[in-house]
Formats: sequence, structure tokens, C-alpha cells
Amino acid sequence: MKFVENAAGRRVPEEVNGRRETPFQGVGKFRPEGTKAKPPIRTCADYPADGNKVVGSLEEALRKCGLEDGMTISTHHHLRNGDELTEKIFDAAHSLGVKDLRWFPSASFPCHANLVSRLEDGTIHHIEGSMNGPLGGYASEGKMRGMGVLRSHGGRYQAVQDGEVHIDVAVIAAPTADPFGDAHGLEGDAACGLLGFALADSEYADRVIVVTDNLVPFPCVPWQIQGNNVDYVVHVDSLGDASKIVSGTTQITRSPDRLLIARYVAQFIEDAGIMKEGFSFQAGAGGTSLAFAIYLKERMKAAGVKARFVRGGSNKYLVEMLEEGLTDYILDGQTFDLDGVRSMRENPRHVNTSPFTSYNYHGKGAFASMVDAVVLGATEVDVNFNANVVTHSDGYLLHGIGGWQNCLASGCTILAIPSFRDRIPVLVEDVTTLVGPGETIDVIVTERGAAINPRRQDLLDATNNSSVPIRTIESLFEETRAICGTPEPPALDRDTPIAAIKWVDGTILDAAYKAVGA
Amino acid sequence: MKFVENAAGRRVPEEVNGRRETPFQGVGKFRPEGTKAKPPIRTCADYPADGNKVVGSLEEALRKCGLEDGMTISTHHHLRNGDELTEKIFDAAHSLGVKDLRWFPSASFPCHANLVSRLEDGTIHHIEGSMNGPLGGYASEGKMRGMGVLRSHGGRYQAVQDGEVHIDVAVIAAPTADPFGDAHGLEGDAACGLLGFALADSEYADRVIVVTDNLVPFPCVPWQIQGNNVDYVVHVDSLGDASKIVSGTTQITRSPDRLLIARYVAQFIEDAGIMKEGFSFQAGAGGTSLAFAIYLKERMKAAGVKARFVRGGSNKYLVEMLEEGLTDYILDGQTFDLDGVRSMRENPRHVNTSPFTSYNYHGKGAFASMVDAVVLGATEVDVNFNANVVTHSDGYLLHGIGGWQNCLASGCTILAIPSFRDRIPVLVEDVTTLVGPGETIDVIVTERGAAINPRRQDLLDATNNSSVPIRTIESLFEETRAICGTPEPPALDRDTPIAAIKWVDGTILDAAYKAVGA
Repeated sequence: MKFVENAAGRRVPEEVNGRRETPFQGVGKFRPEGTKAKPPIRTCADYPADGNKVVGSLEEALRKCGLEDGMTISTHHHLRNGDELTEKIFDAAHSLGVKDLRWFPSASFPCHANLVSRLEDGTIHHIEGSMNGPLGGYASEGKMRGMGVLRSHGGRYQAVQDGEVHIDVAVIAAPTADPFGDAHGLEGDAACGLLGFALADSEYADRVIVVTDNLVPFPCVPWQIQGNNVDYVVHVDSLGDASKIVSGTTQITRSPDRLLIARYVAQFIEDAGIMKEGFSFQAGAGGTSLAFAIYLKERMKAAGVKARFVRGGSNKYLVEMLEEGLTDYILDGQTFDLDGVRSMRENPRHVNTSPFTSYNYHGKGAFASMVDAVVLGATEVDVNFNANVVTHSDGYLLHGIGGWQNCLASGCTILAIPSFRDRIPVLVEDVTTLVGPGETIDVIVTERGAAINPRRQDLLDATNNSSVPIRTIESLFEETRAICGTPEPPALDRDTPIAAIKWVDGTILDAAYKAVGA
Repeated sequence: MKFVENAAGRRVPEEVNGRRETPFQGVGKFRPEGTKAKPPIRTCADYPADGNKVVGSLEEALRKCGLEDGMTISTHHHLRNGDELTEKIFDAAHSLGVKDLRWFPSASFPCHANLVSRLEDGTIHHIEGSMNGPLGGYASEGKMRGMGVLRSHGGRYQAVQDGEVHIDVAVIAAPTADPFGDAHGLEGDAACGLLGFALADSEYADRVIVVTDNLVPFPCVPWQIQGNNVDYVVHVDSLGDASKIVSGTTQITRSPDRLLIARYVAQFIEDAGIMKEGFSFQAGAGGTSLAFAIYLKERMKAAGVKARFVRGGSNKYLVEMLEEGLTDYILDGQTFDLDGVRSMRENPRHVNTSPFTSYNYHGKGAFASMVDAVVLGATEVDVNFNANVVTHSDGYLLHGIGGWQNCLASGCTILAIPSFRDRIPVLVEDVTTLVGPGETIDVIVTERGAAINPRRQDLLDATNNSSVPIRTIESLFEETRAICGTPEPPALDRDTPIAAIKWVDGTILDAAYKAVGA
């Protein structure tokens, strides 16, 4: 394995799974060349005139798609931790005797823990996609044959669009679909709202299978996935556990520290002048973010300010804002609860988006950079504002990137983090894994105050009189170190990368390494 | 100019505008090879982070797009005969001193007559696209430098998708748009409903300019055209004459003969057993088609039958069917009146479609073949059920193909035609120009009765007891000849093709020829 130092000063592998990669060249510096991927031309002569593409089983569909050893199968993660389809896909592949597949999910979850057995029996060679939980642990322990590749949601679209990742067979779990393959996520037992994470797959894969447990007569409207891109449709009894697809509960943090952070963030956004008529914001799905949204809403009401749009991941709090007229639109990338699903189904101002519209860095612009403020989390942030969201301080790969990297394009990127968790510092001297370059991160808000990136003199000026304590990142770091001490560096084998971390433009920003002695 | 005889027995040019073409090989016989067109990869680094792509003028936008001699500019025709933008585009190109452009409209209309001056002064080299009216006459007289290429709506999508036609600059008239380039046709002075004819252009053109007279703050929802595909936005005072964009009047024929034809068609569809619960149909925009829709609606009500979907071109009669619960959906390709626009704006069951969903023969199926019955017109039909929609009996090219060829994929294609018009026979021995191969046409309905294609024994059996007079095409033809006599063949220079007629798969089905002595 050869390594090279990239523009962020990180030592990264030159090759990933046999493919030569471009090291990170700096934010906005890499210039793509060439043309987009070019799927084969099809003809209606090969598809049933009556539009009925239903076949008897997933196995039959995979066989008709010509599934072979070494191919790439993609899936989406809108069913989140309730997905029961993916396991069946690889069971079917196993039954067909197919080996060494690359699994290219938009993300994996704890519910996919059983797929370790398909990695072990050789059906799956390796996973390229965010690995949340057990599969990340498996990779961290050096047990996966190939290297993982972590991409943001936008980076995944970019990789497929640009032809870096060729999908042989896309399998799209569809809460509602018709026999032609038109599909949406708004209704059915597995209703998850939208299917945007599968858009690239449907557009660029050689073959596309739609699997549904709610087959309706043509036309399935709205066609979030277009049947014109679909080869086969499979009708199954169930796609998964509805109670885990959308949790139905959205828990606001009860931690006084987290509530304080949330309050600071809302106040910062108002004091900085960002919260003004027609502004926009995005917040994550965690408990702190939820609390922030509620605090911000109170401030908006008090000030008589209406947002033009808010970005989801949607939940009942955003839906309330829409329904109370506090925002014109929700532009939503995934629905986190049943209120989000209902609102998207009923309200034309609750609009489904995709990684193409929102995040693809290799398009003619994307929504992400048009958001005035975004509030995100992190597992680690260092004194240069660099941030990590994929590994823990022990070096274990336990989280995906999601839309996090893409959101850094916002006008004001705020990381809302505690200074430490369980006595383990979040504020560190150097992040274990670099996922967000410091120059893209504008503000850190902790329970001990906020630190503004010195590059943002405008924000420093604007918040001169804010009641949020504005401090330097160094002082926050020193205070944290005084409490927690200096942690042991993680025990990692730095010659054995287990996953590459891509930047939004497809270059290699960093790598995660094998945990030693695990 | 070299010619070759194709599978329909037509003598067609081997080359069109210097490009070697494939002669028609039979319905469903041509197999495409290779991959789709591959637009260049772009990067957000080259687009404004705030999403504001507005530039000062159309001329500036064209200059920034790098418009050069010999390039291809595309436009759509949703503004129909009210379009005032296209003329301004070529005025701007003329101001820039650019020559020999290929104009690639989805259709042209009488309102574009002034563009003859841009053909004459060398700004436009030739037109590839349906030429309705004066431009067709100009071409027919042999005055255009290049050869016209007539494609169906689906064929146009196919040609762009397959890379047969490379669009350098697409200019998209948008009744409503935001500074990012998201656009729709539902609101604004130029509201035309949808923008589906511009979809291929937005996806595949090197550069895309959106021009609007109704600029709204981001996000413009729904984004029928996606800003992520757009390079520049231009704000103008007016796109055109609203009264000519959607006529606001939809005239049902008063001709007793035409009304009889319409009644026969409705009765035929009921008697043949096509009009059953959950069926679907499509009818054109002409007066006979409108009358047919009204008669069919009466029969549906009487029989208690509901359609699953009807295809538009929408008008107030289809909208009434939707609002009265006689169909679950309108799947609409263009709106012909203000009721259509309103319904599409307000009713989620009035769904906008595109040539990709509906008509593209080089996709994984298309809606067209899933329609149970379609009612269309023709300028000529011959004794082999071959039909013509582009030339008159004098050989003049005066109409475009529109969706007509694509609709022939329907389960039952019915041509509703008078036997003759102004003593000129519509039923002829051999069509002047072949646009629809006889094997794709199932029924001819005239004021003298219906003729069923002998290939459709099922329809012959089903309508055995119909009160519609079922006759042979030969007897209808002979009766017409007895009335009108045998017309003079058109005076055409058969060595000088002025336009190629493409089949839905991109092969050359026929050509239109120079009118002699005009």
C-alpha cells in the first residue's frame, strides 16, 4: 500500500480497491474533467408493451439482471433501521451462488449486522457506503476484504454520475410502486416519505429492480422513481419493520448542557443577523438540533420573521413550522418521523429533494450552498476547526458521513457540540479522522461558549455584543484539556487503512485505520 | 444525394445534413447499440454559491455560453403560437455576428414566420424540428440550406439522449423561474402548464439558459426544470402573447360529418370492449377529438365506467372528467387551455409528464404503449393503413409529427378522418409521405363507417354486432374515389428531399420533397 500526503496534510492511500485515486487538493481546488457516466441505450422492444414488469421473486429478478461474481449491487437507506430487504437481496445472491459482490448502499445500519455472515461467506467482497454501527466495527477490526469508501450523500451521487462507481444492479425498496416500476415512499406499510437516495441508482445503474410491498395499478403518482428507468418489479409481503423505518418518536435532549448549547446556537443565529425575513436553515436529527429548532422558532415568532425555506431531514417540529406559516417551504432529503411523511404526502410546500438537487458538487450548483445557516454535530473538532464525524476517539469507524460534508457549503456552518462526552474530549488537538476541513467550518458552539473561525471576521464583528460567550477555540480546547486531560491516542495500524474518506469532489480527504489489539 | 429503399419500401436519403443515417428497418426491428450521450462534468466551484445565476441580457447569456458559428440552439414550443422569445434569441445571435446555427425546436409555429429572415441572412443554417406553417412552406420550396428533420416528441428525446443531436445551447422559456434556474409553467403571464418538451434539452445540452418574465425567490416549486442543470438565468419583460399561448377557447366541431365520426369512434370503443373499468385513452386537440371525448364521457357515465387515466394534451373537457371522478388521473404532456393550466396547478391527480416518461422509444418502456385506445387525425391514409400527418396532398410540408407517431404504440390506434376534405381525398391509394406504418394503425373511422386493420381479428370479432358500419378499407377508398376522382399526384422533385421523416427509433422512414413550380 502506497501513501501520499494530500493538501490537508493527511497521509492517504494512493489506490483504493485497485483504483487509482486523486488525493484531496484543497476546498474547491480539484477540477473534474471528462463526461458523465453513460448508461446503455435501451429499447422499448425489449420491455412489455403493457408495462407489466413484475417477476416472481427477487432471485428471479437478480438472475434476469445477469448478476455475476464481482458485480456491484446498490441499495438505499430510506428504510433506515427497519430495512429487512437488503438481507434478502444478499440471501438471494447467495442462493444464486454469486460471489465477491460489492455492496454500494447509501448507508448501512445496525439492522444490517447479519450481513457480516455474507461478508464471511464470500457473497459480499466489501461495502462502499456509510457503515453505521456493527459493519463499521467489523471493518475497523480489519476483517473486511476490500477497503470501505465513505462518501457524503452528494459524494455518492457525484461518484455514480461521474462514473467512479458503476452500479450493475440497483435494488430499490419502494413503499408503493406500480408494475411499470414507478415508485414513491409516501404510502404503504413501509412509507418513508421519499426515495431521493436511490435517484442516482435509478438513473445510472445498468439494471434496476424495484421491490415493493404495496403494488398499485399504473400510474403510481408521484413517480419519485421513474418506471422508465426500471427493468423489473418484485412484489413482496413486507419491506421491513415500519416502527423502525420512521421512529415515530422524536426525542428532544433533556441534558441541561445540550439544552444550553441549543439555546446558544439559536441566539447566535439571531445575534449574527442571520435570522432575518426570508432566511433559511438546516439542522440535523439529533436531540440538540431538535432543541435548537424549537428555540429558533420561538425567536422567529417573537421577531416576526419567516423563513423562505428550511431543509429537512424533516420531523414534527419542522412540519409545525410549515403549518404555522413560519416557513414557505420544507426542502426535504429524508423524513425522520410520521409527521414528516404525512406532511410530504399532503402539503405541496413540503418538497422532496435528492442528493442531485441538494448536494451534488459536480452539478451546476446545488442547494447546499444556498442555506444561510446549518447546525451539525461532530465526534471531534480540533483547534484548526477541522472536524470528524465518522470515527470515535478510539479510532473505530461507527458513523457515516450522510449529508454532513455537503452541508458545510452553507453560508454559516455551526457545529453544536459538547466539549466532552463521558470524560472523553470532543475538542481535541488534532482530529482522529478528517472529514470536514476547518476552513469550511465557521462556528463551534459548546456549553462553555462559542468559537468563531478567525476567517469569518464578519461573524466576529456581528456578534460583538452577543450574550453568547464568544471565545477562542484555543481557550475552549485548553479548558477541556484541563478537565479531561490529554487522551491516549487511538491504537491504530497506520499502514492498514480500512476505509477511505472522500471529499465532496471525489478526492481522498483521509482514511480510517485498523484498530489494533481489538 | 444517394438514396436507399427502406423496409417500408420508401426511397430515403442515405445521409442527412452530412450525417449517415439508418434506413427504417421495420417496426420494432432496429436495435440500438452503444451508450447514451454524456454531458460534461461540471463543478459547483464554477457557479455562484448563493445560487444567483441571473445575467443582464439574453445576448450576454449567449456570449457567456460561448455561442459560435455552426452550433445548435434548442427551444421548446410550450408557448405555442404565442412565443415571442425565439425570435429574440436569433436576433441576439445575429447581434453577436454568429452564423450557420442549427435551430432545434421541439416545434415551430406560424408565429415564427419572421425567422425566415434569419434563415435568409445566414444566422440560421437550417431547422431540425417540426415546422408548422410558414417555415414548412419555406422548406418545401427548397429555400432552406440544410435538410429539415422531423421527429416525434419521443423521437426528439431519443435523438438527444442517444447523442444523435448534440445541443450546444438550450434556451428554455420559463413562465416562472428562480435565480438558480428552477422553473415551471404553472404561473406567470406566460403560464403554459408544464415544460416537458424542454426536459431533454435541460439534461443533455452543454449550456442551458432559462429565460423568464416571472422571477421568484428560490425555491421555484415545483421545479419542472431543475436549476442544477442550468447555467444562466435571464429576466425579461415578456415571453409572449398569453392569449396565443393557451387559446382559452376550445372549439368543438360543428360539422355534422365530423360529429358523426366522433360518435362512431366513441361507440366503437364501447362496442369493442375497450371502455371498461380502469381503461385509458388519449385523444388529440382537434375539434373531432374534442367531440369524441364528450361522447365517450356520456357513454362512460351511462355504463358506470371510470378510467384509470386519460392522456392529455389537456383541455377543459378532460379536466371536467377528472373533477367529476370519471378518471383517476390526467397524465398530461401539454396544456391546451387555461382550465388545463389551472387543474395542473391545483390538482395533484393532474400530472405533468415528459417525452421521456411518455414517448421515448429508447427507454425501459414508455407510457404510450400502456394506453388502451388513442384517437388521432391524419392528412392522408392509404389502403394499407399507412398514414401521413406532415404533408398535404400537394406535397407541401405543413405539419409536425408531435406525439402522433409515439401514440401509435397504443393498444388500439384509431384514426378519425373524413373521407375527403374540400373534395380532396384523405383516403388514398398511397400516402404522399409515410409517417405511420400501416401495421401500427388498427382502425380508420370515417363518416362512412370504420375499417379495421385485418391484422386485428380480435377487434373484427369484438365489433361483429356493432352499430358502427364496419367496412373494408378498400370499399371506403373506392367510394371516396368515386366521389372525388383520382387526384393529380403532387408535383415534387423526387431527387431533392427537403426534410427527413424519422421513425420513433431514429431510423429514416421517409422524406418530404421539394415542391416543383411553386
